Amino acid sequence: MWFAYGILSFFGLESHTHATTKLKSAKEIMASTKWVYRFSEVSQLESDLDESWEAVLGLLGGKGANLANMTRLGVPVPPGFTITTAACNDYLQNDHRLPDGLWEQTIAAIERIEAATGKIFGDPQNPLLVSSRSGAKFSMPGMMDTVLNIGMNDEVARGMAKDNDRASFVYDCYRRLVQMFGTVVLGVPDDVFENALHSYKLHNGKKEDSDLTAKDWEQITQMFQALVQQNVEEPFPQDPKLQLRQSIESIFNSWNSRRARDYRNAANIPDNLGTAVNVVTMVFGNLNEHSGTGVTFTRSPSSGERSLFGDYLMYAQGEDVVAGIRNPQPIHLLENELPEAYRDLSDVCKKLEDHYRDMQDIEFTIEDGKLWILQTRSGKRTARASVRIAVDMASESLISRDEALQRVDPEHVNTLLHPQFNLESLEEAKSQNRLYASGVYASTGAGVGQVYFDADTVERTVKKQGTDVILARPFTKPDDVHGMLAAKGILTSAGGATSHAAVVARQFGVPCVSGSTSIRMNIEKRRMVASDIVVNEGDWISIDGTNGNVYLGRIATSAPLLEEQTELLTLLRWADEVCDTPGIRTATNGKPLRGLQVWANADYPADVQRARQYGAKGIGLCRTEHMFFEENRLPVVQRMILGSTLEERQEALDELLPMQRDDFEGVFTSMQGAPVIVRLLDPPLHEFLPDEYEVWRQLINKRVSSLARYLLGQETPDEIARLEALLARVQELHENNPMLGLRAVRLSIMHPEIVAMQVRAIIEAAAKVQLNDVPVKPEIMIPLVGHINELRVIVPEIRQIASLVMEEKDVKISYKVGTMIEIPRAAVTGDEIAQTAEFFSFGTNDLTQMTYGFSRDDAERNFLLKYVDDGILSRNPFQTIDQEGVGKLMHMCVEAGRRTRENLEIGICGEHGGDPESIDFCHQIGLNYVSCSPFRIPVARLAAAHSALRHQPA
Amino acid sequence: MWFAYGILSFFGLESHTHATTKLKSAKEIMASTKWVYRFSEVSQLESDLDESWEAVLGLLGGKGANLANMTRLGVPVPPGFTITTAACNDYLQNDHRLPDGLWEQTIAAIERIEAATGKIFGDPQNPLLVSSRSGAKFSMPGMMDTVLNIGMNDEVARGMAKDNDRASFVYDCYRRLVQMFGTVVLGVPDDVFENALHSYKLHNGKKEDSDLTAKDWEQITQMFQALVQQNVEEPFPQDPKLQLRQSIESIFNSWNSRRARDYRNAANIPDNLGTAVNVVTMVFGNLNEHSGTGVTFTRSPSSGERSLFGDYLMYAQGEDVVAGIRNPQPIHLLENELPEAYRDLSDVCKKLEDHYRDMQDIEFTIEDGKLWILQTRSGKRTARASVRIAVDMASESLISRDEALQRVDPEHVNTLLHPQFNLESLEEAKSQNRLYASGVYASTGAGVGQVYFDADTVERTVKKQGTDVILARPFTKPDDVHGMLAAKGILTSAGGATSHAAVVARQFGVPCVSGSTSIRMNIEKRRMVASDIVVNEGDWISIDGTNGNVYLGRIATSAPLLEEQTELLTLLRWADEVCDTPGIRTATNGKPLRGLQVWANADYPADVQRARQYGAKGIGLCRTEHMFFEENRLPVVQRMILGSTLEERQEALDELLPMQRDDFEGVFTSMQGAPVIVRLLDPPLHEFLPDEYEVWRQLINKRVSSLARYLLGQETPDEIARLEALLARVQELHENNPMLGLRAVRLSIMHPEIVAMQVRAIIEAAAKVQLNDVPVKPEIMIPLVGHINELRVIVPEIRQIASLVMEEKDVKISYKVGTMIEIPRAAVTGDEIAQTAEFFSFGTNDLTQMTYGFSRDDAERNFLLKYVDDGILSRNPFQTIDQEGVGKLMHMCVEAGRRTRENLEIGICGEHGGDPESIDFCHQIGLNYVSCSPFRIPVARLAAAHSALRHQPA
Repeated sequence: MWFAYGILSFFGLESHTHATTKLKSAKEIMASTKWVYRFSEVSQLESDLDESWEAVLGLLGGKGANLANMTRLGVPVPPGFTITTAACNDYLQNDHRLPDGLWEQTIAAIERIEAATGKIFGDPQNPLLVSSRSGAKFSMPGMMDTVLNIGMNDEVARGMAKDNDRASFVYDCYRRLVQMFGTVVLGVPDDVFENALHSYKLHNGKKEDSDLTAKDWEQITQMFQALVQQNVEEPFPQDPKLQLRQSIESIFNSWNSRRARDYRNAANIPDNLGTAVNVVTMVFGNLNEHSGTGVTFTRSPSSGERSLFGDYLMYAQGEDVVAGIRNPQPIHLLENELPEAYRDLSDVCKKLEDHYRDMQDIEFTIEDGKLWILQTRSGKRTARASVRIAVDMASESLISRDEALQRVDPEHVNTLLHPQFNLESLEEAKSQNRLYASGVYASTGAGVGQVYFDADTVERTVKKQGTDVILARPFTKPDDVHGMLAAKGILTSAGGATSHAAVVARQFGVPCVSGSTSIRMNIEKRRMVASDIVVNEGDWISIDGTNGNVYLGRIATSAPLLEEQTELLTLLRWADEVCDTPGIRTATNGKPLRGLQVWANADYPADVQRARQYGAKGIGLCRTEHMFFEENRLPVVQRMILGSTLEERQEALDELLPMQRDDFEGVFTSMQGAPVIVRLLDPPLHEFLPDEYEVWRQLINKRVSSLARYLLGQETPDEIARLEALLARVQELHENNPMLGLRAVRLSIMHPEIVAMQVRAIIEAAAKVQLNDVPVKPEIMIPLVGHINELRVIVPEIRQIASLVMEEKDVKISYKVGTMIEIPRAAVTGDEIAQTAEFFSFGTNDLTQMTYGFSRDDAERNFLLKYVDDGILSRNPFQTIDQEGVGKLMHMCVEAGRRTRENLEIGICGEHGGDPESIDFCHQIGLNYVSCSPFRIPVARLAAAHSALRHQPA
Repeated sequence: MWFAYGILSFFGLESHTHATTKLKSAKEIMASTKWVYRFSEVSQLESDLDESWEAVLGLLGGKGANLANMTRLGVPVPPGFTITTAACNDYLQNDHRLPDGLWEQTIAAIERIEAATGKIFGDPQNPLLVSSRSGAKFSMPGMMDTVLNIGMNDEVARGMAKDNDRASFVYDCYRRLVQMFGTVVLGVPDDVFENALHSYKLHNGKKEDSDLTAKDWEQITQMFQALVQQNVEEPFPQDPKLQLRQSIESIFNSWNSRRARDYRNAANIPDNLGTAVNVVTMVFGNLNEHSGTGVTFTRSPSSGERSLFGDYLMYAQGEDVVAGIRNPQPIHLLENELPEAYRDLSDVCKKLEDHYRDMQDIEFTIEDGKLWILQTRSGKRTARASVRIAVDMASESLISRDEALQRVDPEHVNTLLHPQFNLESLEEAKSQNRLYASGVYASTGAGVGQVYFDADTVERTVKKQGTDVILARPFTKPDDVHGMLAAKGILTSAGGATSHAAVVARQFGVPCVSGSTSIRMNIEKRRMVASDIVVNEGDWISIDGTNGNVYLGRIATSAPLLEEQTELLTLLRWADEVCDTPGIRTATNGKPLRGLQVWANADYPADVQRARQYGAKGIGLCRTEHMFFEENRLPVVQRMILGSTLEERQEALDELLPMQRDDFEGVFTSMQGAPVIVRLLDPPLHEFLPDEYEVWRQLINKRVSSLARYLLGQETPDEIARLEALLARVQELHENNPMLGLRAVRLSIMHPEIVAMQVRAIIEAAAKVQLNDVPVKPEIMIPLVGHINELRVIVPEIRQIASLVMEEKDVKISYKVGTMIEIPRAAVTGDEIAQTAEFFSFGTNDLTQMTYGFSRDDAERNFLLKYVDDGILSRNPFQTIDQEGVGKLMHMCVEAGRRTRENLEIGICGEHGGDPESIDFCHQIGLNYVSCSPFRIPVARLAAAHSALRHQPA
């Protein structure tokens, strides 16, 4: 008593009487506290806790709550109980003494199990064995301490082993208890036991555990007990209750172990939660021929089909299945073998799925014909299954459509539209060490083909031989596009996720691995080398644009079609319905908004048709310059650039006009009145000319051969003059930083004749389509604007030409003129820009490039990937919008733009338009639509719906 | 009466009686209004208008108010009066009828003049002649209508011409009246008179006006009168009063002429102000030998010296001086000729200067010994005079020091420090058509020298021959710097105001004209061509970096030294005192601030000494890489870059360490404890390597000569291997957009060994200086940061090395680590960046480059200058900060940075730091200092004081 008084007065409590009273009262409270809940007591507990499942989880931990919940549902869970997290906390705070009443309640709970099962703790004839496992509120894999087979001792083992068939199993169980108890509870290092087992086998000429007999296991058990004595100087306890008590205390203590604290620290889990302890009756699937064990999914995790999918082993326990000694049977055979257990299992599956409202992954054991469920959790599944299960469950009214949408990861949808490697074939390639190199995963999908090193050869090979081909280049340029389109895959040794190769590949859904820097391409010798392995032209390779791997040889693939994927189509329809809900969002200026629409970046009529088929509500970016690179057009474009007088340039432009008009006509017709944003010429002119080196080389060659011809009395001065003129022009157009150079609107201001041609082509096409009674909605977009005055110069020119054409054709076209926002200055002055621009479209590739000062052409190769690897950047800002920097500018711009023009239509047409996280940001800042490559449209539609649901007003 | 009634009923007034009453009452009011003020009535007027000079200006116009004011001061102004702007407005609003009472008041005023002068309007014996001029509140040059010599007619002319000596003058005066009245009042086209005069001379064999006799002028006058009759079908009025009345009405009407309305529209002058009419007695400096005319400044407009400066002609009128027929006399000779008039003139000068508190430019006429002042205004002056006059006037207590500071344009100070062309020599060059080309005025000052086309030749020529040399290149690169320093001027055919040539030239005060695109440089043939004129190596040229002109041949220059310009030194001292006033500003976070300090961008010790001498309070930017380009260092730097192992690179770095340390030691010692910001390595590595083409060319040459040697039995494979390796590395380091590439902090993160060497050099140097008892304040600046995590990686490395060195040297250095803000993302996330950075320095060159997406290397040449010419941009954003875009980001960043770090030191070290308008912006957003090239420091000090005065709290 003096001691208690001492402590209390230390804490500043003055009255002796008072302190004693208080102490007593605390003791009483503790003794009356309920520290132990049987699994069957959860309903009562829940009502005690105001129906709060969250509170139940906190008190019983995840595992305990789940076992209790299954018990409440009538699922056959082996009897057991949970010691609460409150008990753990009390124990840890009070000098590691079990709180008053805990042990008494534990013994009482054990007695209830004995009564229910007829088995008795420590009874050699019919022994009760239990497991003891930790279970905190939040899952902490790897720190869970578990002791199995508690209740086993020398006497019990002897009793159980009377049945000779079971002797080996019994002593294996026993030695496991000694080993687990030794390491977990008593702190003997694990390798002490493992080494001993290893030497035993060595001395006795046994190789595998399965070679060991009952006698062996018995001797090993004795040896393990001796090792315990030797290491901790106390015997392995024979008293089952002592085994249990020590196990419980050990689990309490494990909450404060170093690795647990580190884990919580990293995972941001509070330290004051404590862990619960679950004590569960052991059941054995290897008890007799009416016993077995298995795992089943409630639906197929592969296809999503609604039938049990799994396998089982008779006369076996879980570990046997894992060890793979015997081949398990498919689950449907259980119906013949043990019809009652199978029926019970089917019922349980239905019950659990109905309850958890998701496909379940269930562990079960059958002991002497009786089914026991040991665990259930949501099952992992393929992308295909994920979609089918979500749609089916909504159709079954198990979940709502909104929930179905939220169950499917948008990235999963992506994999459904691109060819993927077959798993076995891939595993085989890996096991044969055929992984050759890796790079940036630039465009999703698997591509297999013979490798060729230039676009012309690729195109020719495909046309002539009809084979599958991979185009490999150090990097690609716009005039490689015909080869890229013909290829089954693209591989580059330089450039990152937004390099030309990557952007074009995603645009057309061609798998692409870019910037595979370990590969050295030797175009002249028609081969590439990595890790000293030479791949020659014509050799087969396989590339995986989903993870950036490159393999030698062929790997089988399969590719589904969207139109055949009915569940996916249904899901996407639901997604669109969510986004179409009026007022599901509010713009920053207080105006109600629908969710995001998904538009497409598409240039060619064929491209536009795919976009339409994939569900695009408009074309957010139609790049006119892509049309300039086509074989029959490039020479005309070059003539336009090389023309030294306006007349010469105009002549070439006049030739281009009908070509562009035809393209636009096709696009407008396909889109049937949906908006089509046509961007005026964007790249610098030199992109349309050959490489400076290339021309120089040709020139030197010509000079040399000219010299030879001169010696032979022949000459070709014309060609040399042509090349010299070309070289001069190429050099004149050379820029040190072309991305910051004379292109886009700047080019339009310097060469208004190009804009004039393009606008004429757009409006003439629109007029023709409209006169055919097809509605048309062209929007003309000016790229790279940084100052309102650029628009003030160029927009009136556009309107003048449009009016002229409409007058000529005697037709009225409703069109808009707007701008890209891709220069930081434009983002900063959105209020001014909106005075003239009728719509905004964020070009986030360039905006990121300039806001960060990262060259899209070089940054990834030179430092950006290292930045991401080192965690300097949490992700590549060219793939996911950098919300703190680039995003802040976007947000400012949206607010400023809508201050000037209340209902300003704002979208995004950069590569980020197809990235779910970026889409979520676009939703939050109130954009009207995202525009992405046709192949990303399904992903974007689902992601847009996710955002709408995630942020909908309460 | 029926007429008035008709009009009134036309305007909808119904009652005859009422209308009459109203008319009568308005008439009465109008008749009692004072429309005419004599010059002597201004004091009364001012008191009527509540002492408001503004209101006087409004009513009398600028000219009238000024004449009245001089009259009040007792300055002898010829008698006259002003008809108010109110009268003009009334006239224009009321059907172009003179308001009631106006004409009566005018006649009365004329009578007062007659009384005062004893001359009578229309009296042939002693005629009063007057001029009539418009004069609005705001000066509208070019729309002023003037009629001189009103009062002249046939009779008066005959009377005046009785004195034969004067007859020619009299009829010249008369014909001028007829001509002016004819054109201005009656609207006869001016060329009618000019053509007639021309044919008269032709028919009579006269060449010049001075060949015409009195008889000729008389006949011409008659001819002009006939032309008037013929053109407007009414005679030239002989009645002086009618002449005056019509002149007044004509001036009223001129307010609404097309050109006047256009001018007001462009100059943003309201249309409802109206013009006043000033009627002034004519005085004649050619009346007799006691008459004369002249112009004088109250102080020398050239040197600022305090004595009259001007010239005069006896027996002449103003036009004679202008015509230059006779040589005028310097003003001081007037003292001998007409001592009384000279004394009066001196008194007037003193009086007017005291009153206007500025140097005056005064027109005077002496008529028969009597001085008349016709006009006074603030005199235009040279930069030198501007400074001296301001300082002198403050010393004379005529103005305050603050006013003295505000009187001097900062750009004027700039011209005082650079050589300038002598005016006569320049005029001569122009008259000889020696203007050769023009370009961007990139670095102030005139440069004259023989032209050479590469840096090595320039340096060699200067060293060997000691001649003045101009370096001409298509553009310059860092390894041209030695030649640029040796040259008297730099001329490039490409690149703009922030090209390498321009930046380096300004840095070192070398005159530079950049981007002179009409010049074609042919380096191989050692010549350049523009407008078909060839300039060969060694030819003399003269360039003017103040306006971008390039001249053939030599133009004489002169260049003053700062230390000899005592008035300028005084003025700059006053400027610093203003900026040093505590609390003259308030930061956006409410903290009191002093004005801007001026720091310098300086790299070499010699450079730093000049900065110190010019008054720098710190070094805001010491670029370590400039040191890398020195002749003895570049090979070591190249070895560092080409080293394939860390060891090889480290070896080169070890060699660089003592060199860098010595540089820093010199800089720290010069600055004597003032802060020195050292920027870590900034440019991409390939800038230190030779050009790709160049290496390739060398390689091909080697291969060819190797082939030759091979044929001759010789070989040099080593050199070829070296070149091949170099080419490979150059190609490897090639970037498509180097400005957005691997440089600065990115390079530091990829190659930490370079940073390590630099930090060691900085701290070792600081330790050495401090151990010599010289205080030292190093600040380490990290360039191109875009994300806080870059600092989080690099700053601990810096601190670790610094600590290590301090431990080694057993010394404690107080140093800071901060960052440049030159990436838009850094500006947007200033609050985050300030968590680690201890100071900010805006690198506005790069910030402008990326915010606008304009490549500094190419933009000016390709489109930016056209943008400025066309008014798309009001000015070049690389010269003056774009406040709406770049400035907005800066402002955001300052606010955010100081939210995190209350007293964050923020400066600017871009080229804008020396631009007065940009400095004013920096003052307003609360920067602590601007840092500029040493030669701009005096400009910046004055500009900073201007800002402090302009924005000081009321």
